[in-house]
Amino acid sequence: MIVADNLQILLPSIQEAMARRDPEPIARLIRQMEAAGAEAVDLNAGPCQRNPEQEMTFLVRSAEAATRLPLFIDTANPRAMAAGVRAAGRPPILNGFSLEPRKLGEIVPLAADYGLDIVGYLLDGEGLVPPDAQGRLSAGLALFDAAAAKGLSPERIIVDPVVPPLSWQDGGRQVREVLQTLRLLPDLLGRPVRTVAGLSNLTSGAPSGAPRQVVESAYLAMMTAAGLSMALLNVFHTDTMNAARACRELISEKPFSWAEFGSTPA
Amino acid sequence: MIVADNLQILLPSIQEAMARRDPEPIARLIRQMEAAGAEAVDLNAGPCQRNPEQEMTFLVRSAEAATRLPLFIDTANPRAMAAGVRAAGRPPILNGFSLEPRKLGEIVPLAADYGLDIVGYLLDGEGLVPPDAQGRLSAGLALFDAAAAKGLSPERIIVDPVVPPLSWQDGGRQVREVLQTLRLLPDLLGRPVRTVAGLSNLTSGAPSGAPRQVVESAYLAMMTAAGLSMALLNVFHTDTMNAARACRELISEKPFSWAEFGSTPA
Repeated sequence: MIVADNLQILLPSIQEAMARRDPEPIARLIRQMEAAGAEAVDLNAGPCQRNPEQEMTFLVRSAEAATRLPLFIDTANPRAMAAGVRAAGRPPILNGFSLEPRKLGEIVPLAADYGLDIVGYLLDGEGLVPPDAQGRLSAGLALFDAAAAKGLSPERIIVDPVVPPLSWQDGGRQVREVLQTLRLLPDLLGRPVRTVAGLSNLTSGAPSGAPRQVVESAYLAMMTAAGLSMALLNVFHTDTMNAARACRELISEKPFSWAEFGSTPA
Repeated sequence: MIVADNLQILLPSIQEAMARRDPEPIARLIRQMEAAGAEAVDLNAGPCQRNPEQEMTFLVRSAEAATRLPLFIDTANPRAMAAGVRAAGRPPILNGFSLEPRKLGEIVPLAADYGLDIVGYLLDGEGLVPPDAQGRLSAGLALFDAAAAKGLSPERIIVDPVVPPLSWQDGGRQVREVLQTLRLLPDLLGRPVRTVAGLSNLTSGAPSGAPRQVVESAYLAMMTAAGLSMALLNVFHTDTMNAARACRELISEKPFSWAEFGSTPA
């Protein structure tokens, strides 16, 4: 499943729409994302510090009015998350939680109470990225245990292994640790597990003119082969979107079909 | 390692060069492949039925005069293969053998006697593609045993898991079986194993206008993540070549570098 990461509250057009409570720029962006092939939309509201309840209520209602696609409510602010859940007319996906105590304490119970899917990040208790696959897998085990203690059913959790930017000092090694994590996680947990990865993060900090989409596409295919179920990505990156279609066709149980690509030239 | 598959004796320009014993068209094509990023060159001589010894001797000598890159001698004809080995001034790589008795009997001993690397195809004793990973892995075990019986050291073998065309009725399933084969082979053999895959085969029979390079690129990344060490491909497919560079950077132990891509636009 392709989740669009393009709707971000920090975009000037969206910031202005939020300030003026004008749903049209939000609806327009969502229509463009849907036309580009988005199958779900991440509503990235950031920390939502000013008026968390009102802002998230407006954002969720505007988005629901614009599309039938599933929506991810993406905020680190538990008050905004709760408001989004109450405002939603259809079950949203919560994005997300980690071992950080505030998220376990205030966001996980929302998913448990409302019976919602929720993204769980493989971060440590301080919200930091573990250095290797071992650390990520330990965080995964702890995440399922902590969520269960809050009454959340394990099949509700969509694991995000946390793709690091290649620009980090050890980014090159970390991207391989993420692949290893994706491969080993189901066996470690003893169950099939849905996973989601934020692809845009991979090339953040890349130099201007860098072939971001070439590298995004290759890494997306590697993650798909390692078992990834959903990718959060920039759906306006047409090369990466075509790669995503190729990945889906190559991994699908159905016979391979070139028709999926439409009339894209070779 | 990127092995160019572009030099094929059936190309009209090469066919004519062979007939006229004119090394220049061969040298020109090899220079173009090298400029495109080839790191080795496959000399695809086909069955070489007319004058196997003379043709292969001319082909190998012409290629060696044109480049310092490693050469794969690619023929199903044991007499042509033997002539190529004798004509070569530098150790070539033999491409290749399988469980077919004639190849085990006449091509493997050449690799053993001259101490050469050789490609071993995961095919059955009739030269047919096994239907699944299990069949390919069984062929792999039998291949190493049969080669050892002919005095060939196992580290000489570069395994080709045989990428099927997606246009085959069960091509979509077979490409996943190849990924599984790549993943499981080292554990099954109990040793690290070099592997090579022919990528162009994947999209043979694709409809005109199909986005071959998008699918080639995604599958190359999947195979790389599954452990593939070398790919045989059309080095004039610039998108696939950029994907190959991305794969190498993503899988390399060295820190990730955008410099590898040169000035390719994003």
